[in-house]
Amino acid sequence: MWSEAINQMLRQWMRKGALTLHLPDGTARSYGDGTAPQVTLRIHDDATLRRLALNPDLALGEAYMEGSLTVDGDDLHGLLELVLRNFGGGRRSWWNLPGRWLRKARRGLDQRNIAASSRRNVAHHYDLPPRLYDLFLDEDRQYSCAYFRDPGDGLEQAQLQKKHHIARKLRLEPGLRVLDIGCGWGGMALTLARDYGVQVTGVTLSEEQLKVAQRRAREEGLEDRVEFRLQDYRAVTETFDRIVSVGMFEHVGLPQFDPYFRAVHDLLAEDGVALVHTIGWAGPPGSTNPWIAKYIFPGGYIPSLSEVAPVIENNGLWLTDLECLRLHYALTLRHWYDRFTARLDEAREINDETFVRMWKFYLVASEQSFRFNRQDVFQFQISKRLDAVPITRDYLYRSGLVPRQAEVETLDRARDHAAE
Amino acid sequence: MWSEAINQMLRQWMRKGALTLHLPDGTARSYGDGTAPQVTLRIHDDATLRRLALNPDLALGEAYMEGSLTVDGDDLHGLLELVLRNFGGGRRSWWNLPGRWLRKARRGLDQRNIAASSRRNVAHHYDLPPRLYDLFLDEDRQYSCAYFRDPGDGLEQAQLQKKHHIARKLRLEPGLRVLDIGCGWGGMALTLARDYGVQVTGVTLSEEQLKVAQRRAREEGLEDRVEFRLQDYRAVTETFDRIVSVGMFEHVGLPQFDPYFRAVHDLLAEDGVALVHTIGWAGPPGSTNPWIAKYIFPGGYIPSLSEVAPVIENNGLWLTDLECLRLHYALTLRHWYDRFTARLDEAREINDETFVRMWKFYLVASEQSFRFNRQDVFQFQISKRLDAVPITRDYLYRSGLVPRQAEVETLDRARDHAAE
Repeated sequence: MWSEAINQMLRQWMRKGALTLHLPDGTARSYGDGTAPQVTLRIHDDATLRRLALNPDLALGEAYMEGSLTVDGDDLHGLLELVLRNFGGGRRSWWNLPGRWLRKARRGLDQRNIAASSRRNVAHHYDLPPRLYDLFLDEDRQYSCAYFRDPGDGLEQAQLQKKHHIARKLRLEPGLRVLDIGCGWGGMALTLARDYGVQVTGVTLSEEQLKVAQRRAREEGLEDRVEFRLQDYRAVTETFDRIVSVGMFEHVGLPQFDPYFRAVHDLLAEDGVALVHTIGWAGPPGSTNPWIAKYIFPGGYIPSLSEVAPVIENNGLWLTDLECLRLHYALTLRHWYDRFTARLDEAREINDETFVRMWKFYLVASEQSFRFNRQDVFQFQISKRLDAVPITRDYLYRSGLVPRQAEVETLDRARDHAAE
Repeated sequence: MWSEAINQMLRQWMRKGALTLHLPDGTARSYGDGTAPQVTLRIHDDATLRRLALNPDLALGEAYMEGSLTVDGDDLHGLLELVLRNFGGGRRSWWNLPGRWLRKARRGLDQRNIAASSRRNVAHHYDLPPRLYDLFLDEDRQYSCAYFRDPGDGLEQAQLQKKHHIARKLRLEPGLRVLDIGCGWGGMALTLARDYGVQVTGVTLSEEQLKVAQRRAREEGLEDRVEFRLQDYRAVTETFDRIVSVGMFEHVGLPQFDPYFRAVHDLLAEDGVALVHTIGWAGPPGSTNPWIAKYIFPGGYIPSLSEVAPVIENNGLWLTDLECLRLHYALTLRHWYDRFTARLDEAREINDETFVRMWKFYLVASEQSFRFNRQDVFQFQISKRLDAVPITRDYLYRSGLVPRQAEVETLDRARDHAAE
């Protein structure tokens, strides 16, 4: 019965690519138009069949984690390309089964993100052993979309470029006070303080991240210019000349969008500039994928532009620029995947095989969502006065303006050379 | 009684700047904090007092047109700065008196913009004698926000830069088919055909504009590359590699936002790029100022981003870039005002004094709305595939890519020189 339900579903939806499905009873069936990618999937027991038929969004990732579903050659990229190109994208999302009303109600509960649950949700992900992140992130532990001037750029270079691209958008001058909302392991704050001479306050809810960030500030001798705090951004009371928030808004949750931008408004000086960098959804609002919500980012929510625009407008802020970085995150995630899979033995020392497979599934599902679904990255540049930034965006693309760091000057020269 | 009502209103709201008000009975009162601008306003009869008290949004412009209200030194810029800084801006708009529901209902009627009323509304403004537009526009008759690399740029140069900035965003290649929705007097279409070798179809609802555009195509010998039509964009049936629409979306009206972007989707090739350039409102949705709706742009509506984002998302389109040009339109309008007022004698030959004053009020009110209210300009770059444009925006800011026109090469050299 369950195998027939799955057969019906695949016959109806599988149009692009080729899928061969091996069932627990030893039979096999093929679907699709025979084009690439060609994927062979094996389901090893009847219970998995049943779960996949009833709740595919959650069960696919779970069955892969457990090993009750395998892909020949471990071709997760191929599998998730098939899933997203045939069941996702466009106006329909492969996980949007419950109705709009139900989704709204669930969102209200899952994403309440009052101070206590925020801290718990953050701990779920960011208090994992720091060693885990060393396996796949760059040296500065930038855990967000990098900026590739060229798709062939290395990860270290692209993360460096991301920090300086954001720094340019912030229009920094020595001595300015900068608030970093969701400062992570401190890489952005330290870069801004070191290379631009600003005073940075970084807030995080992760104790593990705080420890690392504070140690790095000490080691770099930047304690007089950078202060890290274990603090909810809603509890910050000072005002700042600049606000930067990278890869944090994804955790805010819809019910907190308005308070978030109200805080940006209230904490920002009158002539200030803010830069909010977040994963976005380039389609009508949807719900968070249940597998991601359960295993990776509880309480998170990927915003559509139509959900962010009203809260910017309602809080009296100017949107001065919106850049959409889409494929940069696909490139970033591929680097992370390649690094992670090159060090699987070390990963298995940190946690068990199920965790390792979960992490692989997370990295690949995310990458393929940027390539084959409507996942996007938004950089919102925001101000309170319409003349807080120059009238053209030339300043973002001119060389010779930026950092003192020798490394980056080299990058800039390489870029100018390429442009000639 | 009416003078007392106005007195109360001014005492309550006039905080910034200085206003001296001379009443019909010969008395005068002062308001504000004494800072610039200092404006002296004279109301010459009791009927005008009454209308101003009851319906200031409409009456201010009407009384100025009739001459029953005058400003010393004809300082309309000062007057409208006072109005907008004290009664507009922020979360409150000086004209948003009726409630949200009433506004919605009115909008439904005023902005229905079915084909017949669209044509009538367009004729109201764009079928005015072409000579009128020669008095204040640039030589190419670009009737939309220019692009100032430097605030000191001249109008001719800034309009040229605008066309080429948009052309870069369109990623043109010789031979591509381009649709220009709302082509005006044909300047953009002719520039794209001449300088980028593309095939352009321009549609307009203004018979006067069509005649001028067709004549220009003949005179320039571009008839084989440019076709102008008197056609509603909703009646276009072909598909195009590129779509450009500049200063037209303001006339679409809220009820037609979804059909407009559905048309962009349906008329655009799969790997196509569209650029929609429109005045926008950088705050929560409001209503059209009644004076503007009655005298200048019947059927028009200035969109908030929160009203455009959903229709982009719902129609399966990618927003690949959003530039906010705000002050560029203030600069443009100041050029138009300066040109217009330098040729008032010629304007009076075209129409009567009331019309001339109406036009001045329109130009100044618009300029000051960009400076002191939340008026903005949005350039939406849109595609159907996420890889239709390069992954960074460098291509918009690199020199040496663009047009064959000697003029523009000179501009590019000047710019590179300035950047050094």
